[in-house]
Amino acid sequence: MAKALVCYYSRTGNTQKMAARVAEVLKAEGLETDLKKVQEVEARDLLGYDLLVLGSPTYYGTMSWELKKLLDESVKFHGKLRGKVGGAFSSSANVGGGNETTVLDILKALLIHGMVLRGDHQGDHYGPVAIGRPDKRALDCCQSYAGNLAALAKKLFP
Amino acid sequence: MAKALVCYYSRTGNTQKMAARVAEVLKAEGLETDLKKVQEVEARDLLGYDLLVLGSPTYYGTMSWELKKLLDESVKFHGKLRGKVGGAFSSSANVGGGNETTVLDILKALLIHGMVLRGDHQGDHYGPVAIGRPDKRALDCCQSYAGNLAALAKKLFP
Amino acid sequence: MAKALVCYYSRTGNTQKMAARVAEVLKAEGLETDLKKVQEVEARDLLGYDLLVLGSPTYYGTMSWELKKLLDESVKFHGKLRGKVGGAFSSSANVGGGNETTVLDILKALLIHGMVLRGDHQGDHYGPVAIGRPDKRALDCCQSYAGNLAALAKKLFP
Amino acid sequence: MAKALVCYYSRTGNTQKMAARVAEVLKAEGLETDLKKVQEVEARDLLGYDLLVLGSPTYYGTMSWELKKLLDESVKFHGKLRGKVGGAFSSSANVGGGNETTVLDILKALLIHGMVLRGDHQGDHYGPVAIGRPDKRALDCCQSYAGNLAALAKKLFP
Repeated sequence: MAKALVCYYSRTGNTQKMAARVAEVLKAEGLETDLKKVQEVEARDLLGYDLLVLGSPTYYGTMSWELKKLLDESVKFHGKLRGKVGGAFSSSANVGGGNETTVLDILKALLIHGMVLRGDHQGDHYGPVAIGRPDKRALDCCQSYAGNLAALAKKLFP
Repeated sequence: MAKALVCYYSRTGNTQKMAARVAEVLKAEGLETDLKKVQEVEARDLLGYDLLVLGSPTYYGTMSWELKKLLDESVKFHGKLRGKVGGAFSSSANVGGGNETTVLDILKALLIHGMVLRGDHQGDHYGPVAIGRPDKRALDCCQSYAGNLAALAKKLFP
Repeated sequence: MAKALVCYYSRTGNTQKMAARVAEVLKAEGLETDLKKVQEVEARDLLGYDLLVLGSPTYYGTMSWELKKLLDESVKFHGKLRGKVGGAFSSSANVGGGNETTVLDILKALLIHGMVLRGDHQGDHYGPVAIGRPDKRALDCCQSYAGNLAALAKKLFP
Repeated sequence: MAKALVCYYSRTGNTQKMAARVAEVLKAEGLETDLKKVQEVEARDLLGYDLLVLGSPTYYGTMSWELKKLLDESVKFHGKLRGKVGGAFSSSANVGGGNETTVLDILKALLIHGMVLRGDHQGDHYGPVAIGRPDKRALDCCQSYAGNLAALAKKLFP
């Protein structure tokens, strides 16, 4: 059974709500899923999963430093994450406030690790974004995105 | 007096509405302003302005090919736009649908031309974006963004 | 057997050389592979493949308008490319000249189509880039990248 | 007289060499210039300058967490940096390794602060990048970029 980690940073609880929905969907799809704050995760822990979904609020157009720190430290295991499936999500205060670029910046890091990504042709295309407190629209995007990632992880890690 | 061009591509009229508001603000700020569809503009025309603001709908996360064609053709005048002021705006069908990246992709082209940009710390940060038909929020962002660009152009091209 | 299309725009032949190497590797990996100029491809043709690798020179930090036109026209088939595997490559005149952003802009379009991507942890991370005429380094990156994409396509489309 | 800060993170000394050249050029252009490691700078310090040039190695396609932490903390002064001039530079291990995206991610943060940017139509377009130890090409790009920023800062803050 494929194993998934949903790892997020959240101060206001907005990104946390998205993380919880993503994790719920992954579990419902049959993946063994851990939901953790970035403070609870060490770089070495990333090795134990087949699917990594990382979430952050949008701070100055990209991920919070706490999540970036985890990624910087993951260099010790560079190459060991290749071929795993990855995803990203973000909440921001405003439309046009940088949430798309935050998602893409996380995805860029996962590409550099040699990971496998998948966009969503219907929901938020790069990865789910919420404006403020996640509403039904944003949570539906989390659901659709997570469903796609789960299907991909199950195909690649049967 | 600084001269400005607002140049846009629009099929549904959404980007056009944003363009009209941007042009209106630039005029009100005292700039001699032309508002033109991309089909009416040739690369050579860009040389005649101190401020260029380019708008496009969001098609697959970046500008429409018609606007890209104008930029590709502007290579004939590479270096001649350096130091001019530039800006960008975009409308898209959805939140998370690529409008931030469309704005940034236009801004990247302007940086490559050696142009001067300015973000907006209050409105849409990279440049104005509308979700569907521009609402008051989006048009207010056009207003704030265009006001900042006008002030910058007047300082640099008194 | 998975079917692949390598589709590129090239004026100087630099991007073409990269395309040829990518196609060669895909064939060697056992994929039925077509190598085509973007002028020879219609949006509808994209439906017939499991793996799409798109290449463009770097023009103002992103793909040439000719490739963007194909992507814009692919909107008629939006949703039909979901789950397929995708990749991108670019040649540029200079280091720091926009080749990374060109690759990423193509990848963004593929994410919006709901496609599956894979980075390279060793070679050019987002996708292969060449500075001027592709040298051994750049062609090795094409090889490594194409090998990864082929492996992914074979797993997903056995 | 315009005041400039060149603030960087560096572990191997590569980014530091670029920072030193940028600072040297700014001084030669007549700006009162401080050159500081990011560990020596607090968010509040940013208020005291008219020009901010930020540099970082390329770690997973974007700036190091240490520089991001400074930007995250600068939110306390959001709005106070608007209209100031900004720039960015990066060193990376490889071509295609994420240095363009690192520069752009820093520039995005500066746009969100409402700052003024300028590209370079001749050198590295978004901002200077070095592959490994900065060579003459990379240092020349630092020189050209810093010269443009100095000219802009002197016009805007005479």
